[in-house]
Amino acid sequence: MNKGDLKISFKVEGGRIFLLRAKHDSDIIDFLTEFAKKNEIATAAFTAIGALKSAKLGFYDQEKHEYSEESLSAPQEIASCIGNISPKENKPFTHAHAVLTDQNGKTCGGHLLGGKVFAAEIHLTELEGAKLTRKNDDVTGLSLWKIPTSNS
Amino acid sequence: MNKGDLKISFKVEGGRIFLLRAKHDSDIIDFLTEFAKKNEIATAAFTAIGALKSAKLGFYDQEKHEYSEESLSAPQEIASCIGNISPKENKPFTHAHAVLTDQNGKTCGGHLLGGKVFAAEIHLTELEGAKLTRKNDDVTGLSLWKIPTSNS
Amino acid sequence: MNKGDLKISFKVEGGRIFLLRAKHDSDIIDFLTEFAKKNEIATAAFTAIGALKSAKLGFYDQEKHEYSEESLSAPQEIASCIGNISPKENKPFTHAHAVLTDQNGKTCGGHLLGGKVFAAEIHLTELEGAKLTRKNDDVTGLSLWKIPTSNS
Repeated sequence: MNKGDLKISFKVEGGRIFLLRAKHDSDIIDFLTEFAKKNEIATAAFTAIGALKSAKLGFYDQEKHEYSEESLSAPQEIASCIGNISPKENKPFTHAHAVLTDQNGKTCGGHLLGGKVFAAEIHLTELEGAKLTRKNDDVTGLSLWKIPTSNS
Repeated sequence: MNKGDLKISFKVEGGRIFLLRAKHDSDIIDFLTEFAKKNEIATAAFTAIGALKSAKLGFYDQEKHEYSEESLSAPQEIASCIGNISPKENKPFTHAHAVLTDQNGKTCGGHLLGGKVFAAEIHLTELEGAKLTRKNDDVTGLSLWKIPTSNS
Repeated sequence: MNKGDLKISFKVEGGRIFLLRAKHDSDIIDFLTEFAKKNEIATAAFTAIGALKSAKLGFYDQEKHEYSEESLSAPQEIASCIGNISPKENKPFTHAHAVLTDQNGKTCGGHLLGGKVFAAEIHLTELEGAKLTRKNDDVTGLSLWKIPTSNS
């Protein structure tokens, strides 16, 4: 690639596949990160459904490059949750987005920063040979996928 | 495992993969369950998009351990649908969550109890060797994944 | 199949798997279609999360058989995005549904007609041997999966 070129695709191979039953009262993001650490999973993709006792969602301000947060203290259905795990500073990092619904059917969605598990079923596929790592991206201010360099 | 330990991960192998075009006017949950029965699929994960003529969503009361339901009689886009199929009392059981949107863009989400198909495209992956079954869980009142015992 | 029978399941095989980092300022639907063309991917399933600078959603009128559209000019989180790529008139066609959230947590969902990428992470699996193509369906007015005929 020429200088300034950006790698936009990472070819991977399907590795181990797991169905997970997230621990009651655990934080769903911590649960996934810990599972990856224990099982030496560097990169993975997952979906999840279930319910949370409470949750914290983030919305990224594309101008200011900072997150605003919303804490949901009431129980929520996980109407949708899609995410991935990939290396950041040599440790597994869990990135998940979700749509949550309260008992009145009101939906809220965004970056899932955390959520206390009532019950959750996760379908996770390890992705091998990814050769990517999260690095700070100047354009967006986010930590995005790049090819690791010898300094990584 | 010691008494009281809970199995939280089930390693599976990817089996058959299908793209499904759900039958017009069928119930999307029944369609999936029947497809699993006909094709002897014990366990699977799926995603779906499309549109429903009507739908019924459930919200679980985490205190009372009972579902409240909301019937949506107007047409809905399936903005998101994530789910799985797994054995419950030795028969395939379909568990799906969805985010639905009406013609005015209003979203509603939760446990998808049923929905009359207008058109739906489903990506389903069979998961083999799961060795799990749904059993009643005292803590949540839900039917969750456990290892089958000789009495299962 | 007898005349009038409709093929509802297409058995496929898992092909190449990619993690994609959609190009900043590209259109997410065009990005996916172009990626499929360049890599000779006929059929695939994907999920995506991230954020869009703006987006256009469609809602299908099941009676009138036409889309109404809603343009969202403000930044949106991609709280959920599920889709597939399949052949239509011998070219890859991207079909995606999404749930988007604005900075105030307000969600909107539907058929994702387009969206200007701020940042997006896509997990895409090629599906080989699908032997399907999109053809106009009289019942719904949509372009749905059918078996290609010699006239396709």
